[in-house]
Amino acid sequence: MATSLNLYYAPGTCALASHLALEYSGAPYQATRLDFKQQQQRSPEFLRVNPKGRVPALVTDRGVLTETPAILQFVAQSFPQAGLAPLDDAFLLAKVNEFNSYLSSTVHVNHAHKGRGYRWVEADDSASLQAMQKKVPQTMTESFTLIEEKMLQGPWVLGERFSTSDLYLYTISRWLEGDSVDVQRFPKVADHLRRMDAQPQVKKVLASQQA
Amino acid sequence: MATSLNLYYAPGTCALASHLALEYSGAPYQATRLDFKQQQQRSPEFLRVNPKGRVPALVTDRGVLTETPAILQFVAQSFPQAGLAPLDDAFLLAKVNEFNSYLSSTVHVNHAHKGRGYRWVEADDSASLQAMQKKVPQTMTESFTLIEEKMLQGPWVLGERFSTSDLYLYTISRWLEGDSVDVQRFPKVADHLRRMDAQPQVKKVLASQQA
Repeated sequence: MATSLNLYYAPGTCALASHLALEYSGAPYQATRLDFKQQQQRSPEFLRVNPKGRVPALVTDRGVLTETPAILQFVAQSFPQAGLAPLDDAFLLAKVNEFNSYLSSTVHVNHAHKGRGYRWVEADDSASLQAMQKKVPQTMTESFTLIEEKMLQGPWVLGERFSTSDLYLYTISRWLEGDSVDVQRFPKVADHLRRMDAQPQVKKVLASQQA
Repeated sequence: MATSLNLYYAPGTCALASHLALEYSGAPYQATRLDFKQQQQRSPEFLRVNPKGRVPALVTDRGVLTETPAILQFVAQSFPQAGLAPLDDAFLLAKVNEFNSYLSSTVHVNHAHKGRGYRWVEADDSASLQAMQKKVPQTMTESFTLIEEKMLQGPWVLGERFSTSDLYLYTISRWLEGDSVDVQRFPKVADHLRRMDAQPQVKKVLASQQA
């Protein structure tokens, strides 16, 4: 078992999901904030931790873990008493991973075309960057329509059972307003966001990230 | 345990990784080919299987699973005797999931900007689509530089231990030539590709996909 855990994060990023998982796990952990405005994620010090220059990065006794879906399952498996994933059921666990993988490879990617389009076209190609930004409300709406109608069982992603998928969905639902999508179009998602906002662990982590 | 497994795939897609996992598992399975040229992935019949209109989609006795990283772990957990993942070690399993998640959320996404840029800009915006296509060799080179230097231990992704990450890496390495990236720039990746090409399970699955 990892006895020392340190999560690198930045406010407003997908690292919130991993931060929440650590908080819900009940385990001791540290959280280290990076200042993206100062490009700390590109500093030589941090690139030695995570050569991708991204967050989240979770430093454990055995090495560094990156990628939200991987960190979420690692925390759930390391602290099974927290009940963050259906570890005893390969199919249900795959449903959790399916949901988390969709968020990382499709929904987060949709969102990233608003502010990080330079990943996929030249950084000075303002016409293409604007074309990407313009479509973000549509792609996010399409993804959340699928989540609302086909994926989120309610009240939690898996139905009655809470899981890491709820932490990750909450993290990305919080981006909708900035992406010019009204979450009220999606009643189950909006209800999920309200329930998560009210959880003491969520309030605690958000306060610590802003402190 | 799922007793009936049917994988929907199309040749040339990332569904190859899941197809290989099923073959390596030793379990009986069916594979059903979709004709993307005829847009079968958008047919009402298939949208009832997978509303995302994508492959892979694995039909099991308990429901449908999508998203490559989720399917790969499901197959590994369902058929543990095949040794496709370090199921008894949460950290190593997280390294497998980290690798697979990077392939799905970053490398596959890079590649998709060549032929599926219409996901992120309007389909008639040929200037933006071309700008995306133009950067694909660069983004794929950057990703494979990271894989070569930091992620692929060799001979397999985890070192001496074979895993689903090898099936998935092989699937995406095969795209490099079409993305105008010379795999020989990456000696470990090129060696990995050769080793995988020589595996009888790989030959069998590729032949069946082309039959």
